[in-house]
Amino acid sequence: MWRLVTILFLLLNGVCEGGITSSYVRKAAPSIEIPKKKFPPPPGYNAPEQVHITQGDYTGKSMIVSWVTPLEEQPKYVTYWEADEENDNKRNRARSITTTYRYYNYSSDYIHHATIKRLKYNTKYMYVLGKGNCTRKFWFTTPPEVGPDVPYTFGLIGDLGQTQASNQTLEHYLASGKGQTVLFLGDFSYADAHPFHDNEKWDTFGRFIEKSNAYEPWIYCAGNHELDLAPEIGEQVLFKPYKHRYHVPYRASQSTSPLWYSIKRASAHIIVLSSYSAFSIYTPQYRWLKEELPKVNRSETPWLIVLMHSPMYNSNNYHYKEGETMRVVFEPWFVKYKVDLVFAGHVHSYERSERVSNIQYNITEGISSPIKDPSAPVYITIGDGGNIEGIADSFIEHQPSYSAFREASFGHALLEIKNRTHAFYTWHRNQDSMAVSGDTIWFYNRYWFPKEESSSST
Amino acid sequence: MWRLVTILFLLLNGVCEGGITSSYVRKAAPSIEIPKKKFPPPPGYNAPEQVHITQGDYTGKSMIVSWVTPLEEQPKYVTYWEADEENDNKRNRARSITTTYRYYNYSSDYIHHATIKRLKYNTKYMYVLGKGNCTRKFWFTTPPEVGPDVPYTFGLIGDLGQTQASNQTLEHYLASGKGQTVLFLGDFSYADAHPFHDNEKWDTFGRFIEKSNAYEPWIYCAGNHELDLAPEIGEQVLFKPYKHRYHVPYRASQSTSPLWYSIKRASAHIIVLSSYSAFSIYTPQYRWLKEELPKVNRSETPWLIVLMHSPMYNSNNYHYKEGETMRVVFEPWFVKYKVDLVFAGHVHSYERSERVSNIQYNITEGISSPIKDPSAPVYITIGDGGNIEGIADSFIEHQPSYSAFREASFGHALLEIKNRTHAFYTWHRNQDSMAVSGDTIWFYNRYWFPKEESSSST
Repeated sequence: MWRLVTILFLLLNGVCEGGITSSYVRKAAPSIEIPKKKFPPPPGYNAPEQVHITQGDYTGKSMIVSWVTPLEEQPKYVTYWEADEENDNKRNRARSITTTYRYYNYSSDYIHHATIKRLKYNTKYMYVLGKGNCTRKFWFTTPPEVGPDVPYTFGLIGDLGQTQASNQTLEHYLASGKGQTVLFLGDFSYADAHPFHDNEKWDTFGRFIEKSNAYEPWIYCAGNHELDLAPEIGEQVLFKPYKHRYHVPYRASQSTSPLWYSIKRASAHIIVLSSYSAFSIYTPQYRWLKEELPKVNRSETPWLIVLMHSPMYNSNNYHYKEGETMRVVFEPWFVKYKVDLVFAGHVHSYERSERVSNIQYNITEGISSPIKDPSAPVYITIGDGGNIEGIADSFIEHQPSYSAFREASFGHALLEIKNRTHAFYTWHRNQDSMAVSGDTIWFYNRYWFPKEESSSST
Repeated sequence: MWRLVTILFLLLNGVCEGGITSSYVRKAAPSIEIPKKKFPPPPGYNAPEQVHITQGDYTGKSMIVSWVTPLEEQPKYVTYWEADEENDNKRNRARSITTTYRYYNYSSDYIHHATIKRLKYNTKYMYVLGKGNCTRKFWFTTPPEVGPDVPYTFGLIGDLGQTQASNQTLEHYLASGKGQTVLFLGDFSYADAHPFHDNEKWDTFGRFIEKSNAYEPWIYCAGNHELDLAPEIGEQVLFKPYKHRYHVPYRASQSTSPLWYSIKRASAHIIVLSSYSAFSIYTPQYRWLKEELPKVNRSETPWLIVLMHSPMYNSNNYHYKEGETMRVVFEPWFVKYKVDLVFAGHVHSYERSERVSNIQYNITEGISSPIKDPSAPVYITIGDGGNIEGIADSFIEHQPSYSAFREASFGHALLEIKNRTHAFYTWHRNQDSMAVSGDTIWFYNRYWFPKEESSSST
């Protein structure tokens, strides 16, 4: 009798409606890590390396520039100027703070972080680090002023690591030429997959992503591979390498921790959460998010995007239901505040959900199932950067109704915000040329145009 | 049709079976806090005060003795001896470490913690603190050696505060004369209910509980009122006053944080968890509990007891479902390892659950309801110490099937472990004399005698 009710329930709940499990079969290949020696430091005396940038304030008028040097020598600043300014007197400097850390038997080089402030919007800047023969020159473009109809394109990459597949992902993303800022879903270097969490792997990772991250900001979100907890070798300070190497502007959004914060950029309000910090009621992350969400002004930033590492909706046997503990706390808010998109990593495959919510659950009633909900976000798992751990190729056999499209391939995605109502989203598997999209959908803004979307997946 | 299925489901699930909502109606009375001046420091120059003790190691052969003095003067040690030893040469000393902290405009006095090691089991010890006229003398009895049939009685108190009701609870518990150790479910002083988290309230609370806690160990569990997060006054270090004042032997159980740890005491293995720290997969608390549970040896400690602040099963509208985020992570382990009892506080009333589990939930199936499970713990909410916030007198109208007994009264409980199979449990409301029990049940050990229990509640 119980079974009958269950079946009835499942039928009514539309489990049989049917998302798409891609028929694409990725050729089995091990995810081989690129050897350290393939990521040498730049030549020259005390040359700055591992250069990376991220937004430095709440609205995009600042940039945090970070780099590493083997020695603690001058210059401890970044020199920058508007790219079309030829007058050398118009060069400015932003001083850096310098930090180091030890991790077991590893001692870091000198890690510098400089925040360049009061930048003009929509402007290309040049910047140089180092001195003499070893000067290195880079550039970035600031975002347009925050506003509701500002087009802007975000790249989406997660669980990157430093394998041949990782490189393919990053090269494909760069080849698109479209991305202006990367939303990075966590799991950076996978140093912790090596004996004693070999922190030289953090250095090689920094060198690896420089080709992108020195020129465009990445918005960082911490994953489980950033925890670096290893009590067996006396390492108990959580997120130690990550926090030393990757700075974020968390104070600008009144956060008390770099693990959760928000920024506005162009027409998007982006909230970064931490799957591996406390988030139950009364905790700092809970309190912060509760205060942050009502501050989102959809007339200024129509697109409300949440980043986290562990997905709330995932139909892969890998990490299945790991996101439940956060879902039961935050999902009601995501629906209430009409979050447009929630991006996660962690599962090494690709999955896009329907607009569903599962917030009617009441422990007394006992019925709990995701239902279609036009106020709910689409949940996208894009932990498919391609890292040493390989692909997550074991989906739950019957695709649940909440799952719209899923495929066990490595890749990246692009979110092209066009205006306050429309955003064009494409996911690209590494095996295709950039012109081919494995999953395509026009997203409609939940606040301004909450219509049902339809996708075309190949 | 949906509704029909829901009703069918509920019927089958036995929601209508019926636990007991006590008909006892507590006379409405405000929970008035006892003024600070009613808790003066002891007289005399630099007299030690706020004396409290807790188990100092994994098995009960050590005791942590803590006290506070206004000045940083000698003696910085505790002097102790076996109570039946009259030879003054047999007096020993254990040195203390001393700490202080600042909280907004409050500066603590000197807080001392001394661990007395290598005690004999089952032995009464005297101990003195201070010097000269201001010497203060106390005593405690060590537990019997850890073993499967050792009788032992625990008191259970939660959310105590320092009101007239709090005092009634503690006096009732002391009047029973039965308790040998208190399992304290968190929420100590409620200092954070006062402007700027008036930390003098932590001092008065320490004076208040001394009459019990100087003579018998309390096993401490942190609640939300220990967080003391107040960014608006620059206080962002979580659990600061609590961690300075209440030390626990967390390293003895390989924990890396005082917020979660375990001890063995007599025939019980007691695990303390933190509702307000991270506990999702990969986090330190998760990793610790995963390693701790298989270590429990039921042939040595048959009774496996878990303490936490926020209940996983609660049918009160106050804090309803706040425990879900931890339940979805840890409940499967509680069932797998046949935890006997889970005690929580937080909700200011009393509730005892059936032996239920709700771990069959699968986000695809959607059906999720607590079902009777002989391997599951009984969940007891005993956040009814009686504090400034008053009673939680709003139960969900239809008592859910998981709830066996509930009543909105202040009180305390006693768990009298008799042997490896039986433990006699009584809950006492403050309005009755100690001889009267509001809820009584013989608990049968889940490992040695997993039969169904039956209660008699009045």
